[in-house]
Amino acid sequence: MRIIGIDPGLAIVGFGIIDKIGSKLVPKQYGCIRTEAHTSEPLRLKQIYDAMTSLLAKYQPEVMGIEKLYFNRNVTTAFSVGQARGVIVLAAEEAGIPVYEYTPLQVKQAIVGYGQAEKRQMQEMVKVLLSLRETPKPDDTADALGVAITHAHSSFIQNISHGVKK
Amino acid sequence: MRIIGIDPGLAIVGFGIIDKIGSKLVPKQYGCIRTEAHTSEPLRLKQIYDAMTSLLAKYQPEVMGIEKLYFNRNVTTAFSVGQARGVIVLAAEEAGIPVYEYTPLQVKQAIVGYGQAEKRQMQEMVKVLLSLRETPKPDDTADALGVAITHAHSSFIQNISHGVKK
Repeated sequence: MRIIGIDPGLAIVGFGIIDKIGSKLVPKQYGCIRTEAHTSEPLRLKQIYDAMTSLLAKYQPEVMGIEKLYFNRNVTTAFSVGQARGVIVLAAEEAGIPVYEYTPLQVKQAIVGYGQAEKRQMQEMVKVLLSLRETPKPDDTADALGVAITHAHSSFIQNISHGVKK
Repeated sequence: MRIIGIDPGLAIVGFGIIDKIGSKLVPKQYGCIRTEAHTSEPLRLKQIYDAMTSLLAKYQPEVMGIEKLYFNRNVTTAFSVGQARGVIVLAAEEAGIPVYEYTPLQVKQAIVGYGQAEKRQMQEMVKVLLSLRETPKPDDTADALGVAITHAHSSFIQNISHGVKK
């Protein structure tokens, strides 16, 4: 199963594409989409949408995991992230890819094992879990990979519980 | 000049298209796009985007006015409205239509003359200014027409001040 994880934002959208082969996780591609602050907001949203559409067409992930809002962030940030997230989710829907949401707490619990983990611990674990030589940069990219891994783990658990039900 | 005004939301997007002919404002079309609560969020965003793209192609407005967030609303609402607004602004950018933002305060001041105006006063004034027989329903549609009128007024003022500068 190929998973794309997303850490949404207007200035930077982190993405991480991983393949789950059996119980193994193999990184396929990761990085970020950046938009310039001096560019108009509508154009920045179009740049994100176009880049995301290209990524999905190129790597054909079967599922998207996306970070859910920090509810303690301020309203202006929420609004700005929301707009970027809207065009990303639209690109997924148009590509026929189901979208799953994970809170930062869920991601930390899945990756490090507890919700109070520090950002650096998270990034270190992402590196280890994907057998990378270096920690992915910027933070947004590492976070996106974290979301993808979280989906891989949670779908594994879902499969198990589904199997038990049978 | 043809203007489309937008009151964004995930469940209801109000729209109002008016023509500004000299100092006269003529309503062309107005209504709302609705999405169902039981539908997935990605599909609702796609429905809004598709409907908006069709509207822009059919009526060919030259400019879009869109309501800016109430900053006193809660973060969850801001996030949800932000996502819907993202796909609407994307549709405008793809159609090559510039987007102008107006706060509810600016709209009230432009329509009724003061920012503490009640919703009902606003709607009554929209009806009068556009020579409509009835107040447009739902509120989202009336608000969208209010945004379109606000842009018509403000672009008139911008033209005047531009003339003065010369």
